[in-house]
Amino acid sequence: MIFTRKQRKYLSDWAQSLEPWTPGELPRGRRYVKLNTNESPFSPAPGVITALQAEAAQLRLYPDPACIALRKSLAELHGIKPEQIFVGNGANEVLAFCFAAFFAGATVRGADISYAFFHTLARLSATTYQTAPVLSNFSIDPGSLCGGAGVVLANPNAPTSLALPPGALRHIAENCAAHGSVLLVDEAYINFGGESALPLLDTLDNVVAVRTFSKAYALAGQRVGYAMAHPALIEGLHKVQKSFNPHGVDRLAQATALAAISDTAYTERCVAAVRAARLDFSNGLQEMGFSVLPSDANFVFARHPNHQGEALQASLRGQGILVRRFSEPRIADWLRITIGNNEEMGKTLNALKSMM
Amino acid sequence: MIFTRKQRKYLSDWAQSLEPWTPGELPRGRRYVKLNTNESPFSPAPGVITALQAEAAQLRLYPDPACIALRKSLAELHGIKPEQIFVGNGANEVLAFCFAAFFAGATVRGADISYAFFHTLARLSATTYQTAPVLSNFSIDPGSLCGGAGVVLANPNAPTSLALPPGALRHIAENCAAHGSVLLVDEAYINFGGESALPLLDTLDNVVAVRTFSKAYALAGQRVGYAMAHPALIEGLHKVQKSFNPHGVDRLAQATALAAISDTAYTERCVAAVRAARLDFSNGLQEMGFSVLPSDANFVFARHPNHQGEALQASLRGQGILVRRFSEPRIADWLRITIGNNEEMGKTLNALKSMM
Repeated sequence: MIFTRKQRKYLSDWAQSLEPWTPGELPRGRRYVKLNTNESPFSPAPGVITALQAEAAQLRLYPDPACIALRKSLAELHGIKPEQIFVGNGANEVLAFCFAAFFAGATVRGADISYAFFHTLARLSATTYQTAPVLSNFSIDPGSLCGGAGVVLANPNAPTSLALPPGALRHIAENCAAHGSVLLVDEAYINFGGESALPLLDTLDNVVAVRTFSKAYALAGQRVGYAMAHPALIEGLHKVQKSFNPHGVDRLAQATALAAISDTAYTERCVAAVRAARLDFSNGLQEMGFSVLPSDANFVFARHPNHQGEALQASLRGQGILVRRFSEPRIADWLRITIGNNEEMGKTLNALKSMM
Repeated sequence: MIFTRKQRKYLSDWAQSLEPWTPGELPRGRRYVKLNTNESPFSPAPGVITALQAEAAQLRLYPDPACIALRKSLAELHGIKPEQIFVGNGANEVLAFCFAAFFAGATVRGADISYAFFHTLARLSATTYQTAPVLSNFSIDPGSLCGGAGVVLANPNAPTSLALPPGALRHIAENCAAHGSVLLVDEAYINFGGESALPLLDTLDNVVAVRTFSKAYALAGQRVGYAMAHPALIEGLHKVQKSFNPHGVDRLAQATALAAISDTAYTERCVAAVRAARLDFSNGLQEMGFSVLPSDANFVFARHPNHQGEALQASLRGQGILVRRFSEPRIADWLRITIGNNEEMGKTLNALKSMM
């Protein structure tokens, strides 16, 4: 779309300054093995369908904007209070509200190889986003993030799949607290490994942990995410939500999320299956000569010394397999491959073997 | 929640400056006749449940962020192109994106008695919101809105229920176009009466009409709304969405909205029933001495010369009936009463009679 000069005038300076983020490709037409957006290979818990049917009778009525039932259930799950929980339309919306509530107009630090959407959110909220380089093994040096500014991290990190070492989050959080700034942690992949920021909430009032229903709970289609923090910070998020989208999260999203967390045994089985498949797949890649980072997520990050990432990705696509790749120079040869089911991972290993 | 000074420091200046909007009360516990949030008294079209069940199998996968199927279907419904349609999580989110995309940092004009959320959105987007007083009969003088600034209106207006007279929107839109500014029209209630801004899109590139699935389509629980405008403005909205909530609208919301607009006969029957009940209810109120504005919406706005609005609202509540009232001095004695089903309206008339 080319804007005429006149039409461009209709757009606010703010809107013109945005740098949108684009999710991984949603294939149309041809049926692909879809390992490019870290979805679960499993269906949501069986109770989700029952919950859906029960809630369908209420669709003519607005949802509960305060998400009371879901927050109560999440609070029980995590051993905290409902006032420490905020629910939004997917973790991305929750992260956007966090940037607006805690970082707007300020400076925030993060890692240079991290969730690219953080850059978009900084632009959205007039936040200065300073990035510190990750080390040569892609690990994050906690010291590089310390200073006066707020900090935003993904743990486990995307797209590297690496979790921070034990204690690192506390070190960063305490440094932020000493400077009166907030530590925001995107824990989208925390069910698959790594140490959550959740225990820090007991003693620190400046830590926000954001979770999603899109990965371990297999509800990417439903767009539900949540933040956990001190009640004062949670109230800040509600203030932003009520100024922007005051009816909050829709009825079916609330009902399905509630059903999903009610079946912990099912979730644990799914997570265990992903972790087992991750180990097998990583071993298979290493046998072919790939470097594979030690993953704590539901995907792996891998590179072959003799093959360009772009060529591997294109060849996989030709064989009906979608994987993700990022164009930043440091990681342009690395592939981010979602852990699917055993059949999908076997097919992917075979496809890669055929290129070696 | 009282913020300590330290915790307040965690909140950005921007977040502290917000003025949140609160939806009409969602009753808990006791079962009320709920005539306070303009929901439909009918269920969504029967096809909505079928669509829900079909889509449930896909919940593990991210939704289509571009909403292609729904936009195609909406385009057919309205005789425009899919590129002229933007879909969001409820009309409120769509309006928020419009303020951000077209009004941020600028001045916008509206009526002093209008949708109160416009004030909240102005604060959210650093927009200066200038209001012109509505006339003594609550109608809007189009001339009062003309000038250099953008314009935001609800048509039919809330909470007055009044539609603009034919031609008024074109007059305002052409004035805006001459000054290079945007006319934004919230058409949440347009199915129940009034003249849509839609035909203006044929010749004007500065008009945005926003619709909802929460009223005529009885999907308030699902949070789906959309904007119609020139493709350049729609692209501006997509830019904001991809910077904030890039996965967009969830799968079940897209699927149920699509099913709802597919059954036009059902929607027309529901709308006709609401209009018939509105006439009967308005007559009943007038027989009791109420002033009732001529409604083009799914609610009426009414006042009794001998009874304070606050007392009437409280007494109705005591009898198990919720209606809405606003505290602004000009309308503090007026009640906004949703048109429910015949039984609910009969019960409400009887309750009011008992107070006369």
